[in-house]
Amino acid sequence: MTTKYNNVYIEDTYTVCGNYENDGPLSEYFDLKHEKDLYFGEKTWEKAEVKLLKEAVDGIIDKKKIEEEDIDLLISGDLQNQIAASDYMARDYNIPFLGIFEACATSGEGLLIGSTFVESKNAKRVLVTTSSHNMVAEKQFRNPTEYGAPKHKTATFTATGAVAILLSNKKSKVRIESSTVGKVIDLGTTDVNHMGAVMAPAAGEVIYNHLKDTKRKPDYYDLILTGDLGIYGKDILKDYLMTNYNLDISSNYNDCGTMLYDIQKQPVFAGGSGPVCSGLVNFGYIYKEMLQGKFKKVLIVPTGAVFSPTFTFQKESIPSIANAISLEVVE
Amino acid sequence: MTTKYNNVYIEDTYTVCGNYENDGPLSEYFDLKHEKDLYFGEKTWEKAEVKLLKEAVDGIIDKKKIEEEDIDLLISGDLQNQIAASDYMARDYNIPFLGIFEACATSGEGLLIGSTFVESKNAKRVLVTTSSHNMVAEKQFRNPTEYGAPKHKTATFTATGAVAILLSNKKSKVRIESSTVGKVIDLGTTDVNHMGAVMAPAAGEVIYNHLKDTKRKPDYYDLILTGDLGIYGKDILKDYLMTNYNLDISSNYNDCGTMLYDIQKQPVFAGGSGPVCSGLVNFGYIYKEMLQGKFKKVLIVPTGAVFSPTFTFQKESIPSIANAISLEVVE
Repeated sequence: MTTKYNNVYIEDTYTVCGNYENDGPLSEYFDLKHEKDLYFGEKTWEKAEVKLLKEAVDGIIDKKKIEEEDIDLLISGDLQNQIAASDYMARDYNIPFLGIFEACATSGEGLLIGSTFVESKNAKRVLVTTSSHNMVAEKQFRNPTEYGAPKHKTATFTATGAVAILLSNKKSKVRIESSTVGKVIDLGTTDVNHMGAVMAPAAGEVIYNHLKDTKRKPDYYDLILTGDLGIYGKDILKDYLMTNYNLDISSNYNDCGTMLYDIQKQPVFAGGSGPVCSGLVNFGYIYKEMLQGKFKKVLIVPTGAVFSPTFTFQKESIPSIANAISLEVVE
Repeated sequence: MTTKYNNVYIEDTYTVCGNYENDGPLSEYFDLKHEKDLYFGEKTWEKAEVKLLKEAVDGIIDKKKIEEEDIDLLISGDLQNQIAASDYMARDYNIPFLGIFEACATSGEGLLIGSTFVESKNAKRVLVTTSSHNMVAEKQFRNPTEYGAPKHKTATFTATGAVAILLSNKKSKVRIESSTVGKVIDLGTTDVNHMGAVMAPAAGEVIYNHLKDTKRKPDYYDLILTGDLGIYGKDILKDYLMTNYNLDISSNYNDCGTMLYDIQKQPVFAGGSGPVCSGLVNFGYIYKEMLQGKFKKVLIVPTGAVFSPTFTFQKESIPSIANAISLEVVE
């Protein structure tokens, strides 16, 4: 389902990152950077993630000199069971709340729901937030870090941070031009250590559907940017689109998971992941470079493996989803 | 945030229930009733819940003689970690998908998001689904059932079933007249065995805000129906609204958690809960009685405790949310 918008603008963004992301090549684009450990003064990792989200919300409120009451709607989701980081953040704000979950594709889902509320004039200002925390994800989805379990080279590294994206009907320099809602795709992959392979088909389907619905060629965009397939998933996506749809995106395509870290030097295996990985790349780096005119039209495609460890233990394959959002500099 | 709609109709609903719900007083209103055990032919409880959701989706598709492709958008959420029942259901349908989570308030959230897509003409038909499964909830949130842990009298019984609500821009007998998005409320309650006390303030706040925004008195509605506070939470809500806002709703108020089961005879303690408890009452009983003219204007207020067992172990209090949706018979 593809929708075009006429009146949805990004008023501003605010990005918060941890030390690994601060050590990466895009550090200069983030608003608040943590440099020490992953607790940020909290007693647990889960509470540390709530703190990051609150820093993002407080950050954008301060940056724009607005009040909570100036925001009509808060849309948030994260990787914690029960999207707990979002719920326990939201209880501290007097803003109507919608909780969403599409794993690492959550920022895209939030943007297209938020855009629908703004475009239909049901809300003037919508705040979309998401977060992830490396240690929370390791604890919940993988092994206790104390085990020191070796990682497969196709594994990815969950990014730590939070992003806040303020959508508004007030004209600004970057607008949400259109969006395509993705479908849940499951081609039978069962390897939890290779999420790039799991998610690439979902990204491929939504990119194909977006281009078909808008009657565009890949070169309409300065950049098509998935997130977060990693170095192997990126190649799988290019193959998938070429094999299934004879569609070549290689000249203007990149993946957020390959951009957030220095993959050669940092211990991130196939690249970054987690909802905030594409969040930091898209709303730190890409958004700020769009403000500077480096990119004019960008199709962002946050990708998520919407799997459950319980179903994986029950021998089920892994479903995934991706949404496509077209960002455009307002001339 | 309150929104009025002009063109959002309930095209139809489909309800699926388990044996406990089938033994309750509202059984005659449900479309598909399971009578035996809680596995429904599946090997695990989690997969059994997926089956219920698929029965609800297939049921509404068959009932309306439509195809998957006639549905523009599927919105679903449930209580499983990673809303797994919804994700693993959605992979079997070729329908764009939005995953949501507000615990037992999920059906209300789905309705107001779906209504926004229909009202803004971004979608002609939206299918909103939710589910819960007693044994999945016991396993994930409470104790292994084999322990036979005694229950507190304020505890509730998670309902088993699934509901599908088909929203459309095509005129029908019942419409979504307006909605009010709730805020996450946390007044410091920590008792996981008394969710009615946790959720009553969230219900109170959204009912108050809805009536204020629409300039209505409680008697505008034939019925104000929360779900699922249970017998104790119901009294707490009435006290909360009287004490804080001098608002008396007692003459036309009821709670879904007190209606789904025969509380005197069935082993449900303070009543029913789970996303599908209010789902079955609202879209089985209430919807069908609206079609018959018994109720003309009903304010449904699904309530949810958006808590995380992890945060509860970390001594945090329990956040909750509720949304208000006004259903109206079209004259």
